[in-house]
Amino acid sequence: MTLFPLYLAICAVPAAAGVLFKPGSWYRDLDKPDWTPPDRLFPVIWAVLYVLMSLAAARVALQPGNELALGLWSLQITISTLWSAVFFGLHRIRAGAVIIALLWVAVLATALAFLRHDILAALMMVPYLAWGSFALALNISVMRRNPSRGHA
Amino acid sequence: MTLFPLYLAICAVPAAAGVLFKPGSWYRDLDKPDWTPPDRLFPVIWAVLYVLMSLAAARVALQPGNELALGLWSLQITISTLWSAVFFGLHRIRAGAVIIALLWVAVLATALAFLRHDILAALMMVPYLAWGSFALALNISVMRRNPSRGHA
Repeated sequence: MTLFPLYLAICAVPAAAGVLFKPGSWYRDLDKPDWTPPDRLFPVIWAVLYVLMSLAAARVALQPGNELALGLWSLQITISTLWSAVFFGLHRIRAGAVIIALLWVAVLATALAFLRHDILAALMMVPYLAWGSFALALNISVMRRNPSRGHA
Repeated sequence: MTLFPLYLAICAVPAAAGVLFKPGSWYRDLDKPDWTPPDRLFPVIWAVLYVLMSLAAARVALQPGNELALGLWSLQITISTLWSAVFFGLHRIRAGAVIIALLWVAVLATALAFLRHDILAALMMVPYLAWGSFALALNISVMRRNPSRGHA
């Protein structure tokens, strides 16, 4: 039995966080770098990443001794749920940067753990790691450009 | 290798959501039923539940064919992270009730899946299910008592 639908259902939770905690006027008014992607691109990128990470987890789920790998996957998806809420809900830019940094480490650990079981599953996590790196850079840039805001 | 520390680390994410999204004056001013527990009780209850659910997951992680059970555990902990943020962050009481109802179903499914592997692990999820039932009742009661607030 493939667990792909279950993993995709888990991804629906951070996706719901993204829908419930919208950018809004606070985000629009922040000083952001030129290389900030347009708002409409974010849900598209996340949709692709959710499908890839769910396919990867479903592949690893077929392997024996996968508990550590799937536990790390669980860690990263839970951290991912927290980020939208803290950044867009609380407007805490610095806390957001800390959470994305932890997310990045969790995604790297997941990809490395997947590599022990299945090369394709590990490769499917690479776009997520790349996006995580970009999102961390963006969050830090926004933090530096708006020194008086959201540093609680 | 026991994965108890990893599962407990995952529980730290919803715990962080609970710390970041505080009750505050909005919650204090809501009309709440007599049987609402005092604020200071919530973190104590959650700490006990986090330890129990992490011990349960660590036991199931030792069993073969546990992917569905651990996937459902992953689903419930992710939903749990969303609840605090939506209820205390967005003040959306009705959305909070929907999220707790989904959480309750996910916890029940996790407990039933654990039962196939390990009776003790399933029993360790029972207090969580009981608390989830209570929290759902509390959320619904608060929703009914405050018809003009937080129904977005």
